[in-house]
Amino acid sequence: MDLHKNLNWRYATKKFDSEKKVSAEKLDYILEAARLAPSSSGLQPFKIFVVTDQAIKDQMKDISMGQSQVVDASHVLVFASWDHYSLERIESVFNYTLNERRLPLSTMDDYKKLLWGIYEPLGEDWHAQHAAKQAYISLGIALAAAAEQKVDAVPMEGFIPEKMDELLSLKAHGLKSVFLLPLGYRDIENDWLVNMKKVRTPKEDFIVKV
Amino acid sequence: MDLHKNLNWRYATKKFDSEKKVSAEKLDYILEAARLAPSSSGLQPFKIFVVTDQAIKDQMKDISMGQSQVVDASHVLVFASWDHYSLERIESVFNYTLNERRLPLSTMDDYKKLLWGIYEPLGEDWHAQHAAKQAYISLGIALAAAAEQKVDAVPMEGFIPEKMDELLSLKAHGLKSVFLLPLGYRDIENDWLVNMKKVRTPKEDFIVKV
Repeated sequence: MDLHKNLNWRYATKKFDSEKKVSAEKLDYILEAARLAPSSSGLQPFKIFVVTDQAIKDQMKDISMGQSQVVDASHVLVFASWDHYSLERIESVFNYTLNERRLPLSTMDDYKKLLWGIYEPLGEDWHAQHAAKQAYISLGIALAAAAEQKVDAVPMEGFIPEKMDELLSLKAHGLKSVFLLPLGYRDIENDWLVNMKKVRTPKEDFIVKV
Repeated sequence: MDLHKNLNWRYATKKFDSEKKVSAEKLDYILEAARLAPSSSGLQPFKIFVVTDQAIKDQMKDISMGQSQVVDASHVLVFASWDHYSLERIESVFNYTLNERRLPLSTMDDYKKLLWGIYEPLGEDWHAQHAAKQAYISLGIALAAAAEQKVDAVPMEGFIPEKMDELLSLKAHGLKSVFLLPLGYRDIENDWLVNMKKVRTPKEDFIVKV
């Protein structure tokens, strides 16, 4: 089926062809899929920064262990999640949802109280971790979207988050950088991984039937 | 395109039709997509438990805030990630990969040292969080797979992880429960969410161009 075929086509691109750019149409398709991803209580506690400015990409390389993908890729997506939850942030999302559904704003009052009653005592470190996890769901879906569009993509966690936050002024947005997703086209001649066999945990070890 | 169509079709199923079962073929398709998901350094630090035993599902309901989906769903997937990283665990995955690629086991020695040099000082709490995040990538892809198969799925974090770990003897596997993914078919008559408008953060707030 299609998704399997696409997942087998994709791989963690180690070398992008810096001459080839992703079209606005394909980029929008991938971003829209990422936006449609579900998240815990529908909060979508993250944003995606789309970096094409070459000077910024050059600075990203310095804080990403010198990895060439951030410079050579057509676009670098930076997923950045909320640095903490707050009643105001939750309320703002719920109110928007209720307005879109033409429901009274009081509809989710009980759920809002329940949720904040759980989240508040867990503290801001837990909040940031939980918000980051929601961005990873969107990552899985963005990868499926990119592969469907035959756009190469490589998730990258190997960078200094504090410096990335500074470079993109994320603190002012109440956000923290979580991972990068450079998008572009593989440089087949110069990518050591492109022809390697895809290896995954064998099914019999990965799945446990209960 | 297909993925967008599928993402718009899916929703967080609140009520499953307990009479309708997911075929073995469709289940395998979803699990295989989840297995093909990428993960940090290819470690795939998680497993999927597939629960169909009704007595276990009943016990799951008690520790999942009484939510009916775990009982009514055809299958409940439990994603469980490594409770910590270790040099042995990393080595075991890398050696398997190298064997599959017919490369000498020494090929990844430098990378292995680099990786463990980073991971070891971060401690087991960080390890568990990081391993859990990799499972969320797989969740995103499993959701795309389920929607492609027109199988309903709802990610659930609302349960007591320690009790879930105990119920499935996860500690003995060196694992921690991360989230549940009940699979099945929507009960259209009795699901309050099925006809609600899907609401997401507006594109202009979700995307920032740099």
